[in-house]
Amino acid sequence: MATMKRHIDEDLQGLREALLTMGALCEEMIHLAVKLLLENDATLMTKVQASEDRVNKLHIEIDERCLRTLALHQPAAIDLRFVAAAIKINSDLERIGDQAVNIAETSLYLLKQPPMRLGDIPRMAELASQMLKDALDAFTRGDVALANDVIRRDDEEDRLKSQTFNTLVALMQSDSSTIQRGMDHILISRNLERIADHATNVAEDVVFMVLGKDIRHGGGVEA
Amino acid sequence: MATMKRHIDEDLQGLREALLTMGALCEEMIHLAVKLLLENDATLMTKVQASEDRVNKLHIEIDERCLRTLALHQPAAIDLRFVAAAIKINSDLERIGDQAVNIAETSLYLLKQPPMRLGDIPRMAELASQMLKDALDAFTRGDVALANDVIRRDDEEDRLKSQTFNTLVALMQSDSSTIQRGMDHILISRNLERIADHATNVAEDVVFMVLGKDIRHGGGVEA
Repeated sequence: MATMKRHIDEDLQGLREALLTMGALCEEMIHLAVKLLLENDATLMTKVQASEDRVNKLHIEIDERCLRTLALHQPAAIDLRFVAAAIKINSDLERIGDQAVNIAETSLYLLKQPPMRLGDIPRMAELASQMLKDALDAFTRGDVALANDVIRRDDEEDRLKSQTFNTLVALMQSDSSTIQRGMDHILISRNLERIADHATNVAEDVVFMVLGKDIRHGGGVEA
Repeated sequence: MATMKRHIDEDLQGLREALLTMGALCEEMIHLAVKLLLENDATLMTKVQASEDRVNKLHIEIDERCLRTLALHQPAAIDLRFVAAAIKINSDLERIGDQAVNIAETSLYLLKQPPMRLGDIPRMAELASQMLKDALDAFTRGDVALANDVIRRDDEEDRLKSQTFNTLVALMQSDSSTIQRGMDHILISRNLERIADHATNVAEDVVFMVLGKDIRHGGGVEA
């Protein structure tokens, strides 16, 4: 039984490390995609794509690890909730990677057009990236207070997205030569907002994993 | 053992039915949200919200059912893959519901503005909705051929989204009074594209569930 216990702990630890590797790659992809835009550096696209390949491989590998852990160890209670959370966090991370690729692709297109004020995009990118980092820290440490803090920050990201939208629509209305570029910036701000949403999903999964209580859809839990 | 087997079958059947109920609610939400826009009928918002409440309750209930099934029956092979697929399909359906709410909210806003040609939005809605329906049918029947067909149709939805984008940007550039409305239509077409993406995710989960083979990220499987 002691050996059995050690085996599941090793598997859970392997799962945790694979998710953190994937999360770190996603953070880097967000950073690279926005840097591509801010620094007019199209060569960063290759790095984004290389990270995407690694994220996609990890996506499949982590799902396999989750199924293997369930099949071999039949975990219960917190261990079971950990694996269920891992299945969902894995999906969220993969989609964060997709959003970062979308940002990089739109940015590549923007580089061919005259430059334009970026509004709140750098701030949105920083906020979304920090939410992701903290959600994964909360996952590693089982830190409900930090997870709740991530969930709260999502409102600020939504506010920045709306502000960006309003500013850019006004600009497009006053100068129709900015419509194409304005649209592209709005799409990037939506991608960043979706990344923050996925980070929020991860944080909600952490709260459920630790407390065994579902806080989604208004069932709030104080840390 | 015979009794045990019957118990897990009952639980899996309950899970399947709950997911189908949730899927039917999502289909209805897409239908109502687009009808609200097409028929200028703001009163449909109440129905969208009522369905959203039910979807959110099912979202929590299905996650609980999945964990209970894993803990009580320790399923293996196809049964285990079924539960893992259910966890992921549950997330995708909940997000489809969110996208339908976004469409309804943007449409409500559009109703206050002068009407505008809708481009490919009705067709995009029909396609996304049918993809969702077929993905869930494929899930119920374990039908890999149908799931692969859903996955193929996602390209058409992407094409319609790009076409809508280009048409509307051209319109906005030629008549700046259409910018606000054009933006709203573009956002709705993005919501529909995301719904089709989620339906594609469901279809990929079905293929994995049935074949035990991961077809995501380029590992295609012929039906």
